[in-house]
Amino acid sequence: MSDVASLLQRAQQARRGLGALPRDAALEAAARRLRAQQDQILEANARDVARERERGTPEPLIDRLRLDSSRLEGICEGLRQVRALPDPLGRVQDGWTHPQGMRIERVAVPFGVVAVIYESRPNVTVDAAALILKAGSACVLRGSSSALESNRALVAALRAGLEEAGLPSDAVQLVDSADRSSVNALLTARGLVDLVIPRGGAGLIRTVVENARVPVIETGVGNCHLFVERSADLEMALEILINGKVQRPGVCNALETLLVDREIAPAFLPRAVRALRAHGVELRGDEDARTYAPGVEAASDADWDTEYLDLILAIRVVDGVEGALAHIARHGSGHSEVIVTRDLAAAQAFQDGVDAAAVYVNASSRFTDGFEFGFGAEIGISTQKLHARGPMGLRELVSYQYRVTGHGQIRGSNPQPSAAQEQA
Amino acid sequence: MSDVASLLQRAQQARRGLGALPRDAALEAAARRLRAQQDQILEANARDVARERERGTPEPLIDRLRLDSSRLEGICEGLRQVRALPDPLGRVQDGWTHPQGMRIERVAVPFGVVAVIYESRPNVTVDAAALILKAGSACVLRGSSSALESNRALVAALRAGLEEAGLPSDAVQLVDSADRSSVNALLTARGLVDLVIPRGGAGLIRTVVENARVPVIETGVGNCHLFVERSADLEMALEILINGKVQRPGVCNALETLLVDREIAPAFLPRAVRALRAHGVELRGDEDARTYAPGVEAASDADWDTEYLDLILAIRVVDGVEGALAHIARHGSGHSEVIVTRDLAAAQAFQDGVDAAAVYVNASSRFTDGFEFGFGAEIGISTQKLHARGPMGLRELVSYQYRVTGHGQIRGSNPQPSAAQEQA
Repeated sequence: MSDVASLLQRAQQARRGLGALPRDAALEAAARRLRAQQDQILEANARDVARERERGTPEPLIDRLRLDSSRLEGICEGLRQVRALPDPLGRVQDGWTHPQGMRIERVAVPFGVVAVIYESRPNVTVDAAALILKAGSACVLRGSSSALESNRALVAALRAGLEEAGLPSDAVQLVDSADRSSVNALLTARGLVDLVIPRGGAGLIRTVVENARVPVIETGVGNCHLFVERSADLEMALEILINGKVQRPGVCNALETLLVDREIAPAFLPRAVRALRAHGVELRGDEDARTYAPGVEAASDADWDTEYLDLILAIRVVDGVEGALAHIARHGSGHSEVIVTRDLAAAQAFQDGVDAAAVYVNASSRFTDGFEFGFGAEIGISTQKLHARGPMGLRELVSYQYRVTGHGQIRGSNPQPSAAQEQA
Repeated sequence: MSDVASLLQRAQQARRGLGALPRDAALEAAARRLRAQQDQILEANARDVARERERGTPEPLIDRLRLDSSRLEGICEGLRQVRALPDPLGRVQDGWTHPQGMRIERVAVPFGVVAVIYESRPNVTVDAAALILKAGSACVLRGSSSALESNRALVAALRAGLEEAGLPSDAVQLVDSADRSSVNALLTARGLVDLVIPRGGAGLIRTVVENARVPVIETGVGNCHLFVERSADLEMALEILINGKVQRPGVCNALETLLVDREIAPAFLPRAVRALRAHGVELRGDEDARTYAPGVEAASDADWDTEYLDLILAIRVVDGVEGALAHIARHGSGHSEVIVTRDLAAAQAFQDGVDAAAVYVNASSRFTDGFEFGFGAEIGISTQKLHARGPMGLRELVSYQYRVTGHGQIRGSNPQPSAAQEQA
């Protein structure tokens, strides 16, 4: 049996009955251990950082990798926040009585074993483990090789915390291998991995989705649009545009393309271009946009599909809501889309017509976030339509089961058509 | 572009705005067309039946394939029932106000394009199309080659009904090919198929799950257990046992294995064996079971994992709830599991410990069914934990999106940790 398979077997053992064990106490103990083992953790992290420096890894990536006592304290504070959230397990989501008298309840239950495949930042190690454990599942972590020593130290502390609270330490495990084949072993372990969540860049997510034979939730790619409709308050549109593009350009809920209604392009575009340039944003426009914004570089077809994650913005002039919907249907990634408008019918048509996780009327796309949505935590932002869409908190990290309680009821012959009667 | 790809492109076109069109009127018109075109449909079906007879297809399969005017009327009645169900779209599943004042609503929206890959029975063609259309999605059907002519005739009638009601006929399409490569084309059409649902035997489901690169819901394999706990009312246990095994052995919610608590094995097993034999059930027992039931054939290891779908039952003696849970954890398929008990703690331990879509206390596994659960319809029974578990009705055939309505809110700098800030 491969290392990953035996690790997963242990995770499957550990997950049994996890929901009934003191998970919150384990999170508290884990935070204590992280603080107590701060020196070892920071030393391990320093070795990761030194090795990556030597390899010539770019400084922004080094910064993502780096831990210090203040960042570690932030990680512990995150554990405290997850602990304080209400338990997602055991919630009766629905319930009714069958005509023959059985009580049927739909109850939130754990997934089982949840794997997370992620890049670089070691805080994800603790954040993901905490959320998955809180949701009653065992957690299998596969971080990047650049953070391997940091992750080992962090997971050792977490596991010590679990044990201290009487939980099986195998409920949190690290795939301790830089070998790429370990990713494939995770992705194909049907029956051993109940869910895999990729977190990282578009390349990682594509690899996971294309190779997974286990259930997967696709996250994070955001090609987000702002459409400024003809009736828009242009001042408001400008603020939402700058916030969406400039406040934090490297994240998935940032804006990548501005769509401007033809009727107001002459009034809006010159102002928008001035404001964007003042913030250092590089612009790429279609032909129409460039007539109102001289000096803007010509956009290529590829620009409409590019998630820049940088201070770059594509600009296109479109004909009304219909034009905006057609562009978004073709190029959107199903993440977050925004209209600025004063027209109720336009707002409704946009919300009804956009197939994305979050559709905004007169508010910034930057709000697509588990904390902003009030979930108290977030394991990622789903861009698929199965199971979870948009920010995923604890509610999205559980499954459910039907619990039926009777007093001897059996099924009679049923005159109704029934799919169960047709299926193998 | 392949035939399947262009068909899917048309389906993607057709699905846009489908939620706002008169779907119920289309279902009504479809039923009218099915009745009006009864002769063509039955003639096409007769050709399928004749060809399969010639090929030597076994008679039970021929019977599944065969349509007559009464079965067709049943199909039309099914359409009427789906039409009468409440619209699953537009339901506000949750809603709240962000501290900055935006209204956030979580609203049920269509999946988009849903593909169904199924075997034999032509009634599935109409049932699946009706449910998916009612749920606002376009439907792509891939039936078995044995029913190809029947399916063509049925889909022609459905499409005529759609057109009559002003819906795009491409919202229901048949993959009109016996070629296996068309299945693969469906399963790998990322971005064009939003969900694929396999319906049929274990082999079909495995093929779909292993080859799908699009989101899939695994359905239908049911290796269901009945555990008779020591405190059980043995009369009740017997009734639930016979109902589960005998009433309709060929379906996924039928029982396949009986687990008997060691303490009551001497009292229960001889009675159970007599009753089962009286119903013509073939029995295969472990060594302990055979001591209480002479003449029962020895079970092999494979028996514990076999979904017989026939009048065959495996029997095993186990030690209490823990023994039953261990057996079910190892051999269950996550469908339906039953305990018969008078002991509250045993009932609770069983419901908490079994990881299956439906867990019964003192009631028959045969109730795991969308109609019995009151959903009014069923597209299948999910045995996976992502998105839907157990019987899937209209509520499970929709996705959701967040609709955020503000008056110009932008995001400030946020001191909280935020996954969106870390992700590409």
